[in-house]
Amino acid sequence: MHARAAAEVNELAEALRAGSVRALARGLTWIEAGGPRAEALAEQLYPHGGRAHVVGITGSPGSGKSTLVRALVRAVRARDAIVGVIAVDPTSPFTGGAILGDRIRMNDLTLDPGVFIRSMATRGALGGLSRATADAVDLMDAAGRNPIFVETVGVGQDEVDIMHLAQTVVVVSVPGLGDDVQAIKAGILEIADIHVVNKADREGADRTIGELRAMLTLLPQKDDARLPPVLPCVAAREEGIEPLREAIAAHRALLEATGALATRRRHTAQTRVLQIAHGLLAEAMAGADGAAAEPVLDRVARREMSPYAAARALLSHVKGEGLAR
Amino acid sequence: MHARAAAEVNELAEALRAGSVRALARGLTWIEAGGPRAEALAEQLYPHGGRAHVVGITGSPGSGKSTLVRALVRAVRARDAIVGVIAVDPTSPFTGGAILGDRIRMNDLTLDPGVFIRSMATRGALGGLSRATADAVDLMDAAGRNPIFVETVGVGQDEVDIMHLAQTVVVVSVPGLGDDVQAIKAGILEIADIHVVNKADREGADRTIGELRAMLTLLPQKDDARLPPVLPCVAAREEGIEPLREAIAAHRALLEATGALATRRRHTAQTRVLQIAHGLLAEAMAGADGAAAEPVLDRVARREMSPYAAARALLSHVKGEGLAR
Repeated sequence: MHARAAAEVNELAEALRAGSVRALARGLTWIEAGGPRAEALAEQLYPHGGRAHVVGITGSPGSGKSTLVRALVRAVRARDAIVGVIAVDPTSPFTGGAILGDRIRMNDLTLDPGVFIRSMATRGALGGLSRATADAVDLMDAAGRNPIFVETVGVGQDEVDIMHLAQTVVVVSVPGLGDDVQAIKAGILEIADIHVVNKADREGADRTIGELRAMLTLLPQKDDARLPPVLPCVAAREEGIEPLREAIAAHRALLEATGALATRRRHTAQTRVLQIAHGLLAEAMAGADGAAAEPVLDRVARREMSPYAAARALLSHVKGEGLAR
Repeated sequence: MHARAAAEVNELAEALRAGSVRALARGLTWIEAGGPRAEALAEQLYPHGGRAHVVGITGSPGSGKSTLVRALVRAVRARDAIVGVIAVDPTSPFTGGAILGDRIRMNDLTLDPGVFIRSMATRGALGGLSRATADAVDLMDAAGRNPIFVETVGVGQDEVDIMHLAQTVVVVSVPGLGDDVQAIKAGILEIADIHVVNKADREGADRTIGELRAMLTLLPQKDDARLPPVLPCVAAREEGIEPLREAIAAHRALLEATGALATRRRHTAQTRVLQIAHGLLAEAMAGADGAAAEPVLDRVARREMSPYAAARALLSHVKGEGLAR
């Protein structure tokens, strides 16, 4: 990196740490774009993170997560916290276009400088979204945002990745969704620190709450050694939000008291290191080195070389790159 | 690998290629368990794959994918094809326990030796599920299964990964799901080669079909240079299945005629090489080398070292491993 670029990174990092909203916005744009400038910024700010309470909020499509996050942000703002929100959107692997629903729905909060909201969109790279989201969390953390809410849309691997970023994971359900949805829920049941049954004024809410509580007793004990609470909410009417805010704060205190916080931080570190290493590999293959990789990929596609042999060749190629920088 | 282990791999590979169902089942169990034995088997069988038509079937929770796959398998079996089915289940990152719903629902087909059904479960490793699924597809392919259906539950990154494994991607919708679901659909619209609106006897089916067709005209043109068809089905009553079977076969023929098949094979190769390289990194960190990685991760967790620096250290460590084998 040239001296001028390095100075630009330093300047932005300083302004961001001093609380400049404009610097934070610019830094997040860098992070989304990726590349060496983003990496330098993330690397410089990394030592200044680790203070914020990172709260992951996830659940089935249609569960009203965005409304819930909005209500939670208002509850936290009422106590003068400076809040960060990262909305992770599913997006096309080809166009990179994000879905704007959440940005629009969040609008009424964007007039408050104490709330910083950012939508993240994957650029299709494997692990790219989680990696960029992790850096975005660090930037908000270094900028003094606390708590930081990370909301994902979708189910599956996303939930697992969030778990590794967040200290407290809130899983949102609603009464009366179909069998398949409940089946997927079973897969993410274990990553929840707090369960919310949203739209709890709907028919069947008591049954959903009861089923969740019953299922939770069947899971292996968690590192924080307790059963996650199951809290009813009607986010659209702001009902049940204050008990949820309290439960989230209490969970963080519990993690600190039991030492589980350190364990979770190590898990986060492990996930991030792997994601970054993977990103370096993907960049090597798709970027400037793409031309070198192509004949190898053609041989794999023609079944003349196994993907295992090609992967080892790639690793040996990238190592020099990574160390040379 | 010892001579005896290598002989065992050879023997299994031979029996599997000769069509032994027992050998295929055993090979898939190896693949799910992972490790050097699985890698040796996958590597040995890789040159013998590439013949089967791999069909990915994906869509929202509750869309009736499993019922659809079951009906499709029956339609294909009626024409004497030897079929493979891989059901990819969401699963817990902690227990590794799969959800058994699909296995149970598939039961009526398991008495037919011409249908081989396998559920895959992630072991929580990043990229582990896609990687194991890719190897499972290769094993079924080398065993002469054709077509091979890969069904995923869930939405998001899973769909993108399937796209890279399958030559034909079928996305299943149902009438009358909520806004959020449709928003997620927008993210996977572009990976569909064929759209199915299942449960098409429900109210609103015509509107859903019309909306899908309207959205498809807005997308960038695909490599096969056509608009994906939108087909109504009632899988539970086996209605619309034969037109779907024909559309799937026609798509494969189109890919061959346009040369898009070679492009997709190269994409598959790229994804697989990256996944395997990533897997080697993850194994190095979690496996025998885990003890060496731990102090580094502790430093990252304590914010004394950045995850970027740790990732570069990891890459430089693994390279030697990979080459030494």
